[in-house]
Amino acid sequence: MTEHNGGSDTVRIDAGALTRVCRDLFVAAGMPLDDADLSARQLVSADLRGVESHGVVRMGIYLERLQHGVIAAHPQMSIARETRSTAVFDGGNGMGQVAGQRAMELAVAKAREHGEPTFVSVRNSNHFGAAAWFADIAAQSEMIGLAFTIGGINHMVPWGGAEAMLGNNPFAVAFPLRGDDTMMLDMACSVAARGKILVAAKEGRAIPADWAVNRDGQPTTDAVEALAGFVAPVGGPKGYALTLTIGLLSTMLSGAYFGSEVTHMYDDFEHPQNIGHLFGVLPITAFEDLDTYFARMDKAAADIRGVRRAPGVEQVWLPGHREASLARERSAHGIPVGQETWRELSDLGRAHGVAVPSPLGV
Amino acid sequence: MTEHNGGSDTVRIDAGALTRVCRDLFVAAGMPLDDADLSARQLVSADLRGVESHGVVRMGIYLERLQHGVIAAHPQMSIARETRSTAVFDGGNGMGQVAGQRAMELAVAKAREHGEPTFVSVRNSNHFGAAAWFADIAAQSEMIGLAFTIGGINHMVPWGGAEAMLGNNPFAVAFPLRGDDTMMLDMACSVAARGKILVAAKEGRAIPADWAVNRDGQPTTDAVEALAGFVAPVGGPKGYALTLTIGLLSTMLSGAYFGSEVTHMYDDFEHPQNIGHLFGVLPITAFEDLDTYFARMDKAAADIRGVRRAPGVEQVWLPGHREASLARERSAHGIPVGQETWRELSDLGRAHGVAVPSPLGV
Repeated sequence: MTEHNGGSDTVRIDAGALTRVCRDLFVAAGMPLDDADLSARQLVSADLRGVESHGVVRMGIYLERLQHGVIAAHPQMSIARETRSTAVFDGGNGMGQVAGQRAMELAVAKAREHGEPTFVSVRNSNHFGAAAWFADIAAQSEMIGLAFTIGGINHMVPWGGAEAMLGNNPFAVAFPLRGDDTMMLDMACSVAARGKILVAAKEGRAIPADWAVNRDGQPTTDAVEALAGFVAPVGGPKGYALTLTIGLLSTMLSGAYFGSEVTHMYDDFEHPQNIGHLFGVLPITAFEDLDTYFARMDKAAADIRGVRRAPGVEQVWLPGHREASLARERSAHGIPVGQETWRELSDLGRAHGVAVPSPLGV
Repeated sequence: MTEHNGGSDTVRIDAGALTRVCRDLFVAAGMPLDDADLSARQLVSADLRGVESHGVVRMGIYLERLQHGVIAAHPQMSIARETRSTAVFDGGNGMGQVAGQRAMELAVAKAREHGEPTFVSVRNSNHFGAAAWFADIAAQSEMIGLAFTIGGINHMVPWGGAEAMLGNNPFAVAFPLRGDDTMMLDMACSVAARGKILVAAKEGRAIPADWAVNRDGQPTTDAVEALAGFVAPVGGPKGYALTLTIGLLSTMLSGAYFGSEVTHMYDDFEHPQNIGHLFGVLPITAFEDLDTYFARMDKAAADIRGVRRAPGVEQVWLPGHREASLARERSAHGIPVGQETWRELSDLGRAHGVAVPSPLGV
């Protein structure tokens, strides 16, 4: 599910140094240090995991939106409505990374206090980065985590339509394993993430023919043309129904924008996006003794990893495990960042008086 | 998402008459009248909605399993564990249709009583038919419904594997609309349902090349060969991660079988399957005033249905609405049942002394 950067078109940057650059850029854009640090760690986490489409490649647009005031650097976040096992969280138009963190932490705290399934919906938020980050917060507390969000751009069509009315809405589900990485589904509803088309366009690469259609509904391998068209859903009408469902879950329980209300993250710098999320936590202990759950998950994991492999396949991975393995390697040896993205970060650093480190091994 | 029966290879049967035949066959197999009636209505509902793969085509296998005692005709169902907003429901090895109905009704009752998100896991159940039926129970009570189940056969491979270890696990999410049909996602994780391959094999039809691979991992258009191989997941590794996630949600919270524990619904008549489900209910009123929710859903529906259409497309449908429309037509004019399936039902009727009606218009 990942397309890894690497090779001669990248520079290798120390993860800690990259985090500090992003943190300092967010601070320069007016964010409090804690929020800046959280947002930076979340972005770099995506790059560590090989999900570059949701990593530091997004710094430019986040900073631009902060500078236009269309994301609030100092948001007033609040709980708009609350029951024992639910809440509606108002993100105060702050960074999605920060609103999402607070909302999922609230869900985990409620689930821990009452031991019941807990859902927190979010409104007045923004693009929150990679969904896996939030689902994993629950898994780190030995609970099953769910994270849904509506995307920041309408670039999918309803099945049979020729007009964008749906985001390529992602969701994540995290299952804790004991003494092992979290088992993590993290997917959007297109064959490929728009962010990957964005990376390809930035770096002048072609894309596979089934990733997108152009403005007239024709398949294209030109990443720039694809950005002007629509991304294609997995499984045709199934992917349409799935992205619609995730979009509705993310917005209809909070008052966040949907459909024709959605503005374009990269084009509209006047209106707050009112992005919505939904976070869910299933406390395992309500259903099953924790030791039994972990033992059964261990067996399930062994079943999956132990199957006969197709010719040429070295290892069968559990979802999220290749990403976790890559993160360890990149934590130790640095993150390959695309040249174009690195130039942008360096330019941003110069413009805002933020020190930018040298690439590793140069 | 549906492949409709129709044309000269089908006979048209009155829906009520078809329900009575199935009900009486279930009673002849030893089931109580109420359970038989519920199961028959659920199966015929799938045929009404054009989801023939989960309709009366399954009567033969259900009856065979009942007769072998590997599905219990008189199950002892019980609540094994319970909190305010959760339960573990033991289906007593009864029909999945019956266990699922009781479990989802329990979830809806708890959600209505406490107004909180409610999840009920199920173990010792069996193949439950179409997931949409269960999610819709919540929607009929003006709540969002979720239904997950593990399939009754392992016929998908982990990504990179060449050995079946996963079911083509389906799930459904239902959103109530006011004065309109339920908006309903109901999908399995393969490009096409195995049941559709089953129908094609029964009727001697070829299948599209992307539906399945054979035993050696090669694409095939031969439905019989495909049944001996594996169905292909939507979006490659995404579909793998999704079907694994649905399988784990359906089994790890209840003690139902997963992976190497799963037996083959059509081959093994000695061991109960211990199928697991998970049902979820999100009470809208915990998050949003009901009138506001319905007004926003109306607007969302209008946005989707109102988009510019691709050339040749007459109507953009909301998920589940084409099925609901078809169900009205078929309720009025009868259900087209495949000749082969109808012969099987007629033979079963003769064998068990159950009166079988004449096709309509014959």
